[in-house]
Amino acid sequence: MICYITRKEHFNAAHKLFNPNWDKEKNELVYGKCANENWHGHNFELYVTVRGTPDPETGFIIDAKRLGKIIQDHVTEVLDHKNINQDIPYFKDKLTSIENIVVWIYETLRPHLPQGALYKVKLVETENIFVEYMGENNL
Amino acid sequence: MICYITRKEHFNAAHKLFNPNWDKEKNELVYGKCANENWHGHNFELYVTVRGTPDPETGFIIDAKRLGKIIQDHVTEVLDHKNINQDIPYFKDKLTSIENIVVWIYETLRPHLPQGALYKVKLVETENIFVEYMGENNL
Amino acid sequence: MICYITRKEHFNAAHKLFNPNWDKEKNELVYGKCANENWHGHNFELYVTVRGTPDPETGFIIDAKRLGKIIQDHVTEVLDHKNINQDIPYFKDKLTSIENIVVWIYETLRPHLPQGALYKVKLVETENIFVEYMGENNL
Amino acid sequence: MICYITRKEHFNAAHKLFNPNWDKEKNELVYGKCANENWHGHNFELYVTVRGTPDPETGFIIDAKRLGKIIQDHVTEVLDHKNINQDIPYFKDKLTSIENIVVWIYETLRPHLPQGALYKVKLVETENIFVEYMGENNL
Amino acid sequence: MICYITRKEHFNAAHKLFNPNWDKEKNELVYGKCANENWHGHNFELYVTVRGTPDPETGFIIDAKRLGKIIQDHVTEVLDHKNINQDIPYFKDKLTSIENIVVWIYETLRPHLPQGALYKVKLVETENIFVEYMGENNL
Amino acid sequence: MICYITRKEHFNAAHKLFNPNWDKEKNELVYGKCANENWHGHNFELYVTVRGTPDPETGFIIDAKRLGKIIQDHVTEVLDHKNINQDIPYFKDKLTSIENIVVWIYETLRPHLPQGALYKVKLVETENIFVEYMGENNL
Repeated sequence: MICYITRKEHFNAAHKLFNPNWDKEKNELVYGKCANENWHGHNFELYVTVRGTPDPETGFIIDAKRLGKIIQDHVTEVLDHKNINQDIPYFKDKLTSIENIVVWIYETLRPHLPQGALYKVKLVETENIFVEYMGENNL
Repeated sequence: MICYITRKEHFNAAHKLFNPNWDKEKNELVYGKCANENWHGHNFELYVTVRGTPDPETGFIIDAKRLGKIIQDHVTEVLDHKNINQDIPYFKDKLTSIENIVVWIYETLRPHLPQGALYKVKLVETENIFVEYMGENNL
Repeated sequence: MICYITRKEHFNAAHKLFNPNWDKEKNELVYGKCANENWHGHNFELYVTVRGTPDPETGFIIDAKRLGKIIQDHVTEVLDHKNINQDIPYFKDKLTSIENIVVWIYETLRPHLPQGALYKVKLVETENIFVEYMGENNL
Repeated sequence: MICYITRKEHFNAAHKLFNPNWDKEKNELVYGKCANENWHGHNFELYVTVRGTPDPETGFIIDAKRLGKIIQDHVTEVLDHKNINQDIPYFKDKLTSIENIVVWIYETLRPHLPQGALYKVKLVETENIFVEYMGENNL
Repeated sequence: MICYITRKEHFNAAHKLFNPNWDKEKNELVYGKCANENWHGHNFELYVTVRGTPDPETGFIIDAKRLGKIIQDHVTEVLDHKNINQDIPYFKDKLTSIENIVVWIYETLRPHLPQGALYKVKLVETENIFVEYMGENNL
Repeated sequence: MICYITRKEHFNAAHKLFNPNWDKEKNELVYGKCANENWHGHNFELYVTVRGTPDPETGFIIDAKRLGKIIQDHVTEVLDHKNINQDIPYFKDKLTSIENIVVWIYETLRPHLPQGALYKVKLVETENIFVEYMGENNL
């Protein structure tokens, strides 16, 4: 009897898309307005899905408040009101595409959850674009 | 040509999380504010997904209005404006975690739909927490 | 230069609509399912609007985080995961209609904000029903 | 490292559900108000999910703006402010159920995306009903 | 102690914007895609606001279920799954702009509510456009 | 017969709250995480409300597409994917609080609309905070 519980958290952050191996023109060609050197930002919505069998004693796969605390401690407190390119060491030399951010979130959360429990991370950048990553749980 | 149709319904209900094998302190430790003996409540949003091939005569996997009626008759009319712990016999001695509620909804709906048609039940408790159950369709 | 800032908070609570001067039949006639003696509940969304001129030093009418703290301390922490009829003394002998709840929230918040600053309180009970109260600021 | 990116677009269109092999009574019996011969309409929300590995040079599975342009050029510009039954040749003799519309959108988009990239199309007809189609990616 | 209660209802309808005093070119110039002679449609969301003092016996300004019934009987059942230009006599020779539809809804509802009770009608055509009408309650 | 039409647009931007007359400690005390010197950002949602009498020839107060174009040309194209503090000359020496941004938007739009037509500007910074400004139309 496997259930999936999803917890939503959010953070507001600045970033820019800029490949340092390219000149400004190529960056603007590829990334458009997202390459603005003075940064732009988003309200990111984060959905973390954990898979498991409800514990007969508690009725819970995982306590949603504890799941929220894990996400806050390791991800949203780290990213909230930050500049992802400048304030997060992992992204010092990585492109801050949503794809790369969502993979970082997944890998950051995984060791803090029971083995095999983390099922999916979904990151919503705007109301029109979101990215999902499932590690090895790929469909 | 398999499609998935999802119908949203909702109900408003009271419940509390309380394990009768524990004393009040342990319940408050595990369940926090959800253990308030005087109950609390939610607007639950329910998404039911049915899988099938569109009927060439109607274009439908299943008539969405009929699907809505099945959900209302067997689930939302039963739970709406009710106390899940007290008014629903199945939960007289079961924990009313969202995990257990979503499994009950899935098992309640399955016999009223064509065999193999019920794919997933998703229950949203607050804007920040939802649980999904897929029976044997686990990913 | 008068601006209006609105802060959203939320709480989940149980209540029932029941006039003790009427018998059960009359209560069910007037309140329908809302009269269920075993309670039901909602996710309430609360919007509090404060009016004022931005302070030239801070750019703020009021610090939105401080406004949030005032609402949490005096309203949402008091109501969250509670039974409004039983746990809130003001409602011991008052009907817990949204109209009465929203007036209570307005009167509870007013003394904790600068004089004349509280403009409107809006309480959303379900996605289909909300009530607004503006004290003496009536249109 | 496979990610899934989803882009939302929308269109507003008229349609009716009417099987020309049946008389008006049977159509009204099966389709209810959706059979109104004078048409009705919806704001359709379309979610297109593409699967792939982020390109190390750009960080992208696919440029979300380019994905949006592909959807607009081949689907939403074709359907927006149109009568699906009358203005879209494919539906001249097809039932315009959401199931059939979503399959048409999937098949229309597939050749314009890299092979194997199109993962899922989801079409939301009202806030209470949506249909998903995944071609051969069925779960 | 004046409160404002708002009830949301919805309907799905087809319409087109077309001034019969103009030729097709002028209609397309003024109305763009909305002039498509084969119609288009929307999911309309309707918010009706009623003003009043809560009745001390019931706690209600007006019973929200009764308000919903009045809106359904006189407005949404009349408009739902209809062609506003063809199926609603009032619009046979009127432009079906949201402005004109919202005024019609306001005038249609007013006689079915206590005198002075109807405060505002808001009609949402798409997630990006809505119109409000308040009769003589103009700000 | 006065109606109010509202058009929603949006932009994504970076900013920080920082008063140059204060040292870093005072800025962090007043603005908290919003004072991060490396910026943060938001998806801003902008609602612009125009007041008027529908033109009997068109049925419109103002063409919603033209209103959208005016907002895009003068506001959202100017702010989108920008750093409000650095890229917008008006804010070079102004605090970029939502209050100040919404006043700037109102004053920027007013001369591009018919006299007296601009009624209200509402700017949503996060799902929990928004500010409204009505110029001299104050309630």
